[in-house]
Amino acid sequence: MHLGLVGLGKMGGNMRTRLRNAGHTVVGYDRNQDLSDSTSLADMVDQLPEPKVVWVMVPAGDPTHGTIDELKGLLGEGDLVIDGGNSRYTDDQAHAAQLAERGIGFVDCGVSGGVWGLENGYALMCGGADEFVATAQPIFDALKPDGGGFVHAGQKAGAGHFAKMVHNGIEYAMMQAYAEGWELLEAVDLVENVPEVFASWREGTVIRSWLLDLLTTALEDDHHLEALEGWADDSGEGRWTVQAAIDHAVPMNAIAASLFARFASRQDDSPAMKAIAAMRNQFGGHAVHVGPPAGAQG
Amino acid sequence: MHLGLVGLGKMGGNMRTRLRNAGHTVVGYDRNQDLSDSTSLADMVDQLPEPKVVWVMVPAGDPTHGTIDELKGLLGEGDLVIDGGNSRYTDDQAHAAQLAERGIGFVDCGVSGGVWGLENGYALMCGGADEFVATAQPIFDALKPDGGGFVHAGQKAGAGHFAKMVHNGIEYAMMQAYAEGWELLEAVDLVENVPEVFASWREGTVIRSWLLDLLTTALEDDHHLEALEGWADDSGEGRWTVQAAIDHAVPMNAIAASLFARFASRQDDSPAMKAIAAMRNQFGGHAVHVGPPAGAQG
Amino acid sequence: MHLGLVGLGKMGGNMRTRLRNAGHTVVGYDRNQDLSDSTSLADMVDQLPEPKVVWVMVPAGDPTHGTIDELKGLLGEGDLVIDGGNSRYTDDQAHAAQLAERGIGFVDCGVSGGVWGLENGYALMCGGADEFVATAQPIFDALKPDGGGFVHAGQKAGAGHFAKMVHNGIEYAMMQAYAEGWELLEAVDLVENVPEVFASWREGTVIRSWLLDLLTTALEDDHHLEALEGWADDSGEGRWTVQAAIDHAVPMNAIAASLFARFASRQDDSPAMKAIAAMRNQFGGHAVHVGPPAGAQG
Amino acid sequence: MHLGLVGLGKMGGNMRTRLRNAGHTVVGYDRNQDLSDSTSLADMVDQLPEPKVVWVMVPAGDPTHGTIDELKGLLGEGDLVIDGGNSRYTDDQAHAAQLAERGIGFVDCGVSGGVWGLENGYALMCGGADEFVATAQPIFDALKPDGGGFVHAGQKAGAGHFAKMVHNGIEYAMMQAYAEGWELLEAVDLVENVPEVFASWREGTVIRSWLLDLLTTALEDDHHLEALEGWADDSGEGRWTVQAAIDHAVPMNAIAASLFARFASRQDDSPAMKAIAAMRNQFGGHAVHVGPPAGAQG
Repeated sequence: MHLGLVGLGKMGGNMRTRLRNAGHTVVGYDRNQDLSDSTSLADMVDQLPEPKVVWVMVPAGDPTHGTIDELKGLLGEGDLVIDGGNSRYTDDQAHAAQLAERGIGFVDCGVSGGVWGLENGYALMCGGADEFVATAQPIFDALKPDGGGFVHAGQKAGAGHFAKMVHNGIEYAMMQAYAEGWELLEAVDLVENVPEVFASWREGTVIRSWLLDLLTTALEDDHHLEALEGWADDSGEGRWTVQAAIDHAVPMNAIAASLFARFASRQDDSPAMKAIAAMRNQFGGHAVHVGPPAGAQG
Repeated sequence: MHLGLVGLGKMGGNMRTRLRNAGHTVVGYDRNQDLSDSTSLADMVDQLPEPKVVWVMVPAGDPTHGTIDELKGLLGEGDLVIDGGNSRYTDDQAHAAQLAERGIGFVDCGVSGGVWGLENGYALMCGGADEFVATAQPIFDALKPDGGGFVHAGQKAGAGHFAKMVHNGIEYAMMQAYAEGWELLEAVDLVENVPEVFASWREGTVIRSWLLDLLTTALEDDHHLEALEGWADDSGEGRWTVQAAIDHAVPMNAIAASLFARFASRQDDSPAMKAIAAMRNQFGGHAVHVGPPAGAQG
Repeated sequence: MHLGLVGLGKMGGNMRTRLRNAGHTVVGYDRNQDLSDSTSLADMVDQLPEPKVVWVMVPAGDPTHGTIDELKGLLGEGDLVIDGGNSRYTDDQAHAAQLAERGIGFVDCGVSGGVWGLENGYALMCGGADEFVATAQPIFDALKPDGGGFVHAGQKAGAGHFAKMVHNGIEYAMMQAYAEGWELLEAVDLVENVPEVFASWREGTVIRSWLLDLLTTALEDDHHLEALEGWADDSGEGRWTVQAAIDHAVPMNAIAASLFARFASRQDDSPAMKAIAAMRNQFGGHAVHVGPPAGAQG
Repeated sequence: MHLGLVGLGKMGGNMRTRLRNAGHTVVGYDRNQDLSDSTSLADMVDQLPEPKVVWVMVPAGDPTHGTIDELKGLLGEGDLVIDGGNSRYTDDQAHAAQLAERGIGFVDCGVSGGVWGLENGYALMCGGADEFVATAQPIFDALKPDGGGFVHAGQKAGAGHFAKMVHNGIEYAMMQAYAEGWELLEAVDLVENVPEVFASWREGTVIRSWLLDLLTTALEDDHHLEALEGWADDSGEGRWTVQAAIDHAVPMNAIAASLFARFASRQDDSPAMKAIAAMRNQFGGHAVHVGPPAGAQG
């Protein structure tokens, strides 16, 4: 089928390749004309047969808002927009309502896979009405891995991005699990060969996983990870997962701790621990500065 | 080679089978004579050629202490004891020293694999001197999975059980990661088909793992896990992992949170939350019972 | 001075009393005519001299939105609205903008004190422009405790509620600190007289506080808190504190854990722990249901 | 009464002064002869009338073990040793048994108060048999604050230090509560005057406490705590509290998180976060180094 694809960065570019390899006709648009197949969003839309289907693959927030806003003007009754970026599920609900005003359908689609996706396929989590998902199904089938990796998570807009968001929250805590275990193994003299321990876990254990494969590979190259800084960014999805858990009164200690560890990794010094130090200083002895506590003498 | 195997429960019994399938001669001993190949520990030892190698597969703590104590009297210079149970690494150090008094070697070996091990092999993490590990290597080779799953973690007794212990700590937090994510997905209306979401994650995602396979299978059978109680036991290893982290000043928030979640799951009511309720009651209004707080009037 | 006071529940009613005791003229309005000094919001506003100052003391969310909406129509240039309820700081910013369209000033004021406030005064945390705070200062002076307990936290709307929100977040973790300590003391045989331990801590220790006073009182009445359930509600403020921390990349492990403990206290059974149980069941033995994991045999 | 006092550092020295002010006869011993009232432990014991009562105030672990060992040789039937240091409760049980072999009584006594204790009294938490506590009661009465601050926590050795240990665990989480709240307030533009916010909380709020007084004082001197590093040591007691909680299956999320925050504050770089960075690097694109994950293609 024909697909308009907005955003041809590393991710979008690879997806275009995978779709073309599967026989689909992709008209890409990117602000960078070196990457683009069309001169403008309007030009891209013009090149599509009806019903026009457009996949948006740009950063969440303003870039996505702006693109959807513009597409609302360019598309019409029966057309379809798919947001494959990392939008918050609450944004999807707004975008769907906005497009529905002109009879344009909307599907949100969380995408996992990174650089491996081109070759192995992308895991896809979609949300939206059955009819909209059905329209785009050939595209989903071409993008996903052969053996699975696709789910239509719910009829409402946002269901797909919600599922992908939770996927990322889980990812944070799984990574933290390995990381905490590794730190402890490194901290003791007893275990002399930590990289081999991790490598051995890839077979027959309860904790084998793709992330373990990755960490094993990293440890083969750099036995004590000396070349790396203990610094980790976080995407919006980890944050939104914990915030959604709070909205729904779901206890989420491990995922929240994993998110907070990333925040802390980016601080040169911990403000909170300055406050701890300040209190410790006070009760350690600056007797002159602090009056006797109310009630201390009974 | 010949091996004495003490403890023929589900785990020990399956290991005996796997070893015999690999061509080894196993003389098993179990207090339950229906399972045992020998009438007593002494009888078992008598049936072994020198150097005698005995694998202990009984519960950690007193059963293991007692068995090793008895073996110390039955074995001699050049013989070898392997503790394949779930002993704490500090116990291994004591057992090794005890056996060394009579020239008996010691290897500790953490074993992962459960009911899958018979068919797929057991992941093995060993600790002890090279010479002792070399003696038992044919046994390890028969027990481990074909493609890996064996590590000699360190020369000192306890290294193997320490690695296995950390494995279990990591396992706790990985399970908690999926569990928290599942709870959030179940809590929202948006995602209508949670079992399919989990199933889809098995291909192409960052979080695919053997534990995810297990949870997917469970969700296929019971979409909302209605047949299960939210109750989880913990083995010593999870506890020891966090306690070792504290001994070594290693922050371990996610694994600790996962351990605490298991403790909480076994409480009918939370004592801590009674104390919270008590304080809330007090400042909510039982004015008669509480005197005005010191300093409250400035 | 004259004050219109909307919302005469336990809190608002006590505040009216304290203000009248201080010589102010309060015209109260409540939907419940038994409590009200006026027949309608319009009637209340009519009875105030210019510049009219109205204190809103109704639940956060829709009740506050509605009241402020209505007041926008009833008040005019130079008048002032104070929101003394528990609004989220983001609501304050919207309310201030809304009222400013008609030249009406706005101050948000977080209030702490509960049933003790009538006698001891209410701690007040305000946000808003200096001129607006100055207008209402006589009211604040009458409500606050004698020796302090008032702060003008910032010039922007929401600063007061933000400070109050963080106060509540801190409160959650302080309560949790005592609660966890109490649970541990109750769990051991060693300490025979836990209520006396808590009572003794009220003098000379690092952890003496008003909350400790409250818990001590509760333990005097019910040595093991047997009459209480381990159940604790949470107000919006605890949730918003953690969500704001996430928005600002602030690690907040202790406060988040305290919030999650309250969520968990209200669950009959833990969904997350069902998922843990499900995974444990799978690897414990239902060999028939689970195919051999990919890669398990190397 | 007469008391032998071993260890005349800042804490022991102040206690000697307070006891003498109360009319007791204290014979101090310290390895530093400039501080000591006696030339040796034996000399100190010689100067005491029977029954001899000796207060040990030296660091936990080997110094306390050594002192008690020596006192066991110097004292006899009916004499009494009080350990006022920070020993682990499990050490107390060993010390009590050791001294009982020669008929010497033992009381463990956790002491809180720091530099404030000389003037305001020390909070005391004791463990041991009634008769032993009764012998030392005049000493406890002189040391404690006037209005309370003393508890006999249990008849068994270790009860006092256990109570003191939990006190310190609670202290960690209370400090963390204020610290996390402070960090969030500092992180937002909205609240312009954070030191004044903290100062205002000292009156009329739920969170007023002695620790809040200390932090307020610190913030008066250094509005943003710029002179301090976010670094905090931890004493054994915080660690033992969490380890004891784990031994007793008590969930202790907030206190554990507070302990871990101190560990992290002393790390130049986080090893765990290096492992996170390593995994992120791998799935970000070093495609050449990582083989396609098992099962990724279904």
